[in-house]
Amino acid sequence: MKVQTLKGFRDFLPKEARKRQFVIDTLRKVFESYGFEPLETPALEYEEVLMGKYGEEGEKLMYKFEDLGGRKVALRYDQTVPLARVVAQYGNDLPLPFKRYQIQPVWRAENTQKGRYREFLQVDADIVGSSSYLADVEILSLTNTSLKSLGFKKFRIKFNSREVLFGKMKEANISEVFQPQVIRALDKVDKIGWEGVEKELKKIEGLDINIAMVMFRLWETTQPVEGDEMNKIWKKSTEMNIPLEWKLTLARGLNYYTGLIFEVEIDGYEACSIAGGGRYDNLIGMFAGKDIPAVGFAFGFDRLIEAMDELKLFDGKDLGGTEILVTNVNPKASQIANELRSKNINAELYVDEKDLDKQLRYADRCSIPYVLIFDKDKLILKDMKSGEQSEVTLDQLPDVIR
Amino acid sequence: MKVQTLKGFRDFLPKEARKRQFVIDTLRKVFESYGFEPLETPALEYEEVLMGKYGEEGEKLMYKFEDLGGRKVALRYDQTVPLARVVAQYGNDLPLPFKRYQIQPVWRAENTQKGRYREFLQVDADIVGSSSYLADVEILSLTNTSLKSLGFKKFRIKFNSREVLFGKMKEANISEVFQPQVIRALDKVDKIGWEGVEKELKKIEGLDINIAMVMFRLWETTQPVEGDEMNKIWKKSTEMNIPLEWKLTLARGLNYYTGLIFEVEIDGYEACSIAGGGRYDNLIGMFAGKDIPAVGFAFGFDRLIEAMDELKLFDGKDLGGTEILVTNVNPKASQIANELRSKNINAELYVDEKDLDKQLRYADRCSIPYVLIFDKDKLILKDMKSGEQSEVTLDQLPDVIR
Repeated sequence: MKVQTLKGFRDFLPKEARKRQFVIDTLRKVFESYGFEPLETPALEYEEVLMGKYGEEGEKLMYKFEDLGGRKVALRYDQTVPLARVVAQYGNDLPLPFKRYQIQPVWRAENTQKGRYREFLQVDADIVGSSSYLADVEILSLTNTSLKSLGFKKFRIKFNSREVLFGKMKEANISEVFQPQVIRALDKVDKIGWEGVEKELKKIEGLDINIAMVMFRLWETTQPVEGDEMNKIWKKSTEMNIPLEWKLTLARGLNYYTGLIFEVEIDGYEACSIAGGGRYDNLIGMFAGKDIPAVGFAFGFDRLIEAMDELKLFDGKDLGGTEILVTNVNPKASQIANELRSKNINAELYVDEKDLDKQLRYADRCSIPYVLIFDKDKLILKDMKSGEQSEVTLDQLPDVIR
Repeated sequence: MKVQTLKGFRDFLPKEARKRQFVIDTLRKVFESYGFEPLETPALEYEEVLMGKYGEEGEKLMYKFEDLGGRKVALRYDQTVPLARVVAQYGNDLPLPFKRYQIQPVWRAENTQKGRYREFLQVDADIVGSSSYLADVEILSLTNTSLKSLGFKKFRIKFNSREVLFGKMKEANISEVFQPQVIRALDKVDKIGWEGVEKELKKIEGLDINIAMVMFRLWETTQPVEGDEMNKIWKKSTEMNIPLEWKLTLARGLNYYTGLIFEVEIDGYEACSIAGGGRYDNLIGMFAGKDIPAVGFAFGFDRLIEAMDELKLFDGKDLGGTEILVTNVNPKASQIANELRSKNINAELYVDEKDLDKQLRYADRCSIPYVLIFDKDKLILKDMKSGEQSEVTLDQLPDVIR
């Protein structure tokens, strides 16, 4: 009998679960302050709802099976296709623009490796039904405020436009056949430099040599062209102190984007982008049978937690947790614990009938900072860190431990 | 193409999702105030971890399949077996008593009917590793405080002991063969009365007639026998103002309980019990190879929401949601929206370039209570309910709308 989790699946014991909950609570608060509304969709969908939406690779990684009623079903693979289904299914009940956020797990049978799991949380926020550049700016502003609320100090949002990128390639006579390869090469510039990109491009057999000229134009561009949609987004964002930087080589993997694309870069966490998004005007309407514009972003939740761990952003944050252990040597211990709880103190009552030493050891192992001890009619508060003991009253206690 | 959810599966649109989130947040806060810690386990487990734990019926309803790696896997069916696995797997990292709560969906291929779903949220709180009656009382106190925090005013916690119930049957010479039928009959007394129970009992062929005498004893009993464990639980709970009532006919379906069993009855919501629990000392140790005592309770989350709806407990509660729509006829509208957000106001910016009338209609359809309108340099606040308009400053706004 394997007493273990499946490969790529994780338990979250209290310490980790608290961090996750802190991040979710913080993000939910920010999302709601921007007028985004919560949405939940089922873990299982009809397979045909999900098929044909994620490419060949996606379909291979999807958890699919037949249920007891012989229905072909699949586990949630992302939150965008379910959103598209919801928009088609409840159209009239959802006044547009519909701003929703969704924080649920998805399942992908990926090859497991460091930082890649088969069950992971997705955090999405999207505006459906508006093609205004103000919607793009709201999403960028939401990304910015979310990161600040989590404690990130130094970061940049790199942005680009799929339209501009493809326009540039067209200008340079790069035929459609070569475009995906050119994009992949350009996307690597931060890792391999311009020389590296040039080398990559030279490998593409049949590619016109005047690519070099395009490259030159790319080098020179530091901001979007005046009058362009990207320029409006950039100007408004800059007015709003959003740290937006134009990066014409940014491509992003997903090819459903149609306009703005962006990615977040965090100083001190170079591993990878922790958030990104863009405009995708042809996707949400797929079940409704018409184009419905949309713009949104997603956090890589595991990377976010990893980045916050590395940058020590959880230090000094109130992650909840038990504040005081009430020892049980007094017949009124249960009531006293309840009184502390009614004063908004997280108080655990020690329930076993063991001696005081054992109870103190338990508090120590559980990292509970204070212990309440009874000495006849007196209440003694023990600070587990300093070891100090002092007499207190119940009324004083909240002030003393905070 | 079916643009729909699977039978027994549900989307939660914003209005419902907000209620659910409110209940979860309230419960989490109460659980943590009692020193309970969050735990998350994966949606998928090795099938063999779950098999043989839920009886024949349970195994039929379990979502089981083979993953791409040929592993036999199953979707989470409850939160108790995964807890048992966690306790065995991380034993040394979890100081006992381990108090954990878990709020995650489970999946069961039930026959769908009113109020019964195939994906539903479970809310569990358990104390693992203590056989003290104080642990039982903590669970009862937690149940009581949880219900009060959600706004329930009149309810009772009916309790009994499996041990006492089986003891009574033994006393009356009811052989083990008949015990399950006798329990089922007794359990119905609230619905069919004592005459009904007697009729049911008479149907059991071979049952000794002196059952009537036992029945008499049951009638007479209004509190647990002095000196008994149940009596200690009852006395301490009464001291703590927990509305606990002895009900010797209470049996509860699950046969893994070994001591205390209890169920909550809400005045004005007679449909069914919304919470229940008890002591189960032989279950949690199943993977660890030893008995580990445990006591806990669970909310039926869907019933809880239904009861709160029926008793109008959501009325007047702050469920979040957008408080003000900032119209976009002013070039500084984006910045002004952000300023309101920084003042902890949930502010939506209208992003489309439409006329004011359309924006007001949108606020109305989305039930947003206030709209901010720009009149040259002036800010006009429109109360959507009364229709009144008044000039405000940004600094005044938080006070005005609350």
